Amino acid sequence: MNIIEDLNWRYATKRYINKEVPAAQIDTLLESIRLSATSLGLQPFEIYDIRSSELRVKMREAAYNQPQLTEASHVFVFAVWTEVTEAMVDSYLQFVAEVRNREISQLDGFRKSILGFLGGKSAEEIIKWSSNQAYIALGKAMVSAAQMRIDSTPMEGFNRQVMDELLGLRDKKLHASVILTVGYRDTENDPIANAQKVRKPIHQIHRII
Amino acid sequence: MNIIEDLNWRYATKRYINKEVPAAQIDTLLESIRLSATSLGLQPFEIYDIRSSELRVKMREAAYNQPQLTEASHVFVFAVWTEVTEAMVDSYLQFVAEVRNREISQLDGFRKSILGFLGGKSAEEIIKWSSNQAYIALGKAMVSAAQMRIDSTPMEGFNRQVMDELLGLRDKKLHASVILTVGYRDTENDPIANAQKVRKPIHQIHRII
Repeated sequence: MNIIEDLNWRYATKRYINKEVPAAQIDTLLESIRLSATSLGLQPFEIYDIRSSELRVKMREAAYNQPQLTEASHVFVFAVWTEVTEAMVDSYLQFVAEVRNREISQLDGFRKSILGFLGGKSAEEIIKWSSNQAYIALGKAMVSAAQMRIDSTPMEGFNRQVMDELLGLRDKKLHASVILTVGYRDTENDPIANAQKVRKPIHQIHRII
Repeated sequence: MNIIEDLNWRYATKRYINKEVPAAQIDTLLESIRLSATSLGLQPFEIYDIRSSELRVKMREAAYNQPQLTEASHVFVFAVWTEVTEAMVDSYLQFVAEVRNREISQLDGFRKSILGFLGGKSAEEIIKWSSNQAYIALGKAMVSAAQMRIDSTPMEGFNRQVMDELLGLRDKKLHASVILTVGYRDTENDPIANAQKVRKPIHQIHRII
């Protein structure tokens, strides 16, 4: 098994069967997200793991009635930071110092870089930056799922304002950026399950300079 | 070998040794990017593979003198779409119809969805959308590289305007979104090579509702 087989196996699943992904595999999936690279190491997102059926029904209404939100085994919302305060940066640096056994003063330069990079950014710019980091983790999570032969669907088609309200994200300075549903494909009812994958040939997207 | 080992092995490499990644492995890396999922299947980016040393020196100047740009075996720039015209959508639908052996008229609903979603967007919004897709592919490429024990560095710290100019992207309605360098870590000269990985414990970023 290698990543090319895994990626050819996976597709954007539209319909799921009613079968739960084992907890140990969900742990692996979450670990793939946790280990993902993020800008400056800040990990500027939280993963909301939606187990409430009532909430899932409401989320589906806020997402053009897409069935994955109620059918999938698990629904993960990448809730990204909308602000980065100095206190958050300092708490992060404290953690770095502990893990790497350094004096906090040794991280002064790093602190300046972080604040220099993020300091002047608007909420919208912070969301763009934190979303980018969530999307890297999303890509890794999709590979992780495919490697375990778990189907997944990245979902961008939903009303972000309503989703933020449903999950109570605004007060926590978070924003629903993108959703990943995981589970097992319903080959009988998913019209895309057996469709040929559509991808441009590599020479159309690869330019050597 | 599994993805958790791969992700624990990798780190954001700062210094590379002078050793080339074999072409066959670069092909696998590019194939991982090509197979990545994108919104509506549009694959709204191109991969600029920078082989010119002169260009790499200039790119490094536009990127706070980060050594990866001249030291790494390969430098890939994710150049994302800045606009989506009806002609581009129609050419894509033609391709989908061919691959899936459908009549183009069967894709009328899909065409309407795409134009409805992308039609009113500003250049800035298109870039945000296309960048998100590039970041999913970036995440997959990083896993792909790690699986082959190739080091990689995702790079956001560069002057995008200068980079666009250096690569002549503006005329092609493209924009330098993010860079991935790949190669082999220089364990002697990279101060981060043996540092402990810093990641929050999962309970700090995982919320069950």
